[in-house]
Amino acid sequence: MRNCIIASTSTIHGSGPLEYLFDTLVELYKNADQILFIPYARPGGISHDEYTIGVNNIFKKINKRVLGIHMFSSVDEAFANTQGIYTGGGNTFLLVDQLYRNDVLSPLKTAIDNGIPYLGTSAGSNICGLTMQTTNDMPIVHPESYKTLGILPFNINAHYLDPDPTSTHKGETRETRIKEFHHLNPQPVVGLREGSWLKVNGDQITLKGKLSARVFEQNKTPYEIDFDSSFSDLN
Amino acid sequence: MRNCIIASTSTIHGSGPLEYLFDTLVELYKNADQILFIPYARPGGISHDEYTIGVNNIFKKINKRVLGIHMFSSVDEAFANTQGIYTGGGNTFLLVDQLYRNDVLSPLKTAIDNGIPYLGTSAGSNICGLTMQTTNDMPIVHPESYKTLGILPFNINAHYLDPDPTSTHKGETRETRIKEFHHLNPQPVVGLREGSWLKVNGDQITLKGKLSARVFEQNKTPYEIDFDSSFSDLN
Repeated sequence: MRNCIIASTSTIHGSGPLEYLFDTLVELYKNADQILFIPYARPGGISHDEYTIGVNNIFKKINKRVLGIHMFSSVDEAFANTQGIYTGGGNTFLLVDQLYRNDVLSPLKTAIDNGIPYLGTSAGSNICGLTMQTTNDMPIVHPESYKTLGILPFNINAHYLDPDPTSTHKGETRETRIKEFHHLNPQPVVGLREGSWLKVNGDQITLKGKLSARVFEQNKTPYEIDFDSSFSDLN
Repeated sequence: MRNCIIASTSTIHGSGPLEYLFDTLVELYKNADQILFIPYARPGGISHDEYTIGVNNIFKKINKRVLGIHMFSSVDEAFANTQGIYTGGGNTFLLVDQLYRNDVLSPLKTAIDNGIPYLGTSAGSNICGLTMQTTNDMPIVHPESYKTLGILPFNINAHYLDPDPTSTHKGETRETRIKEFHHLNPQPVVGLREGSWLKVNGDQITLKGKLSARVFEQNKTPYEIDFDSSFSDLN
């Protein structure tokens, strides 16, 4: 039974990395001492080792040890006895490119389907959608496909930002970009504000945190869904 | 001899579409009555016809007529007797995908190299760089390649936005995204603020408008370049 936390961001303003999720993670990983970390998204271009060490330092606070997937001699070995998985944020194009190049998508999906607890933040949440096409990131590499895990029957827009009514900037708002997406693609998009996450429990998908989320469906006016509501009918 | 205006945005706050560029365009297109318009980027998902009609309504004000490239029976015919070209903004992924699918990149580059006056705004400017990899847009389609025209020996980041020091948002700043780009790619990136444009005159590339631009080179601290300065040494 799937057991995932899919969060908009690792860090919210005024608190340390993942701190707002510590209680949730203690519950998620209650049967896991060691977490398999996927550092491919490399935020700010840091190395896989640097990223993994940084995440281990955070997970120490909830008494978990972290091993990067790149530290194993093979992907099979990495997934062999894993008790919990975390995919961190950074650049979604780089993450997806590396997932394809290293043949990680299929074993990752199998592990999640088998109930291994999974945490995604930011780019690591985008890959839980049907495709990565509603990322905010720059195409710094050209992945062979934008298709992702499909743990959710919709796409995610992480770090969702409402249009700023006082802005004089003429670059497209997030809402305009998602509208452009829907002219060519049918799947719904959930704009997850920072501080929000989706809890996946088997077939149940619930919005958690203290904020509403914005839902974009093709040919419909966007609407808000309250926290603690279910997304199970959205597909 | 190349003769291009490569602008950050079509529209600046408080003025009509392209209005801030009208004097520049009268000069650019002084020998052109009819402009070949490339509407592939489809801002907000509008159709090629709607986009072309809208642009014609703007160009009327400087006494030019506009024909969309999709209105010709072939790409060859579209470029056969063209006197001036404009590629408008919207989604850069869609624009580049359509340029590849319709085999437009090569004749477009040839026309520009032959001195046909060219205007690009936003996505239509991004394609003048070496690659489209520093776009801000969403990957709503998967183009076969991110390689673009290479009229400039660097990449463009259109609608460049400075980090907001008061922001509590944890999504990456533009500067962080470009830093991630430079961990994997060598070419310089010019962050063009709204209201700025590059004037290409043969081998000369000059920053125009009233603002400085931000230049990002691999392994260097980003720096500002003043308006009316030359970019000819940047590559």
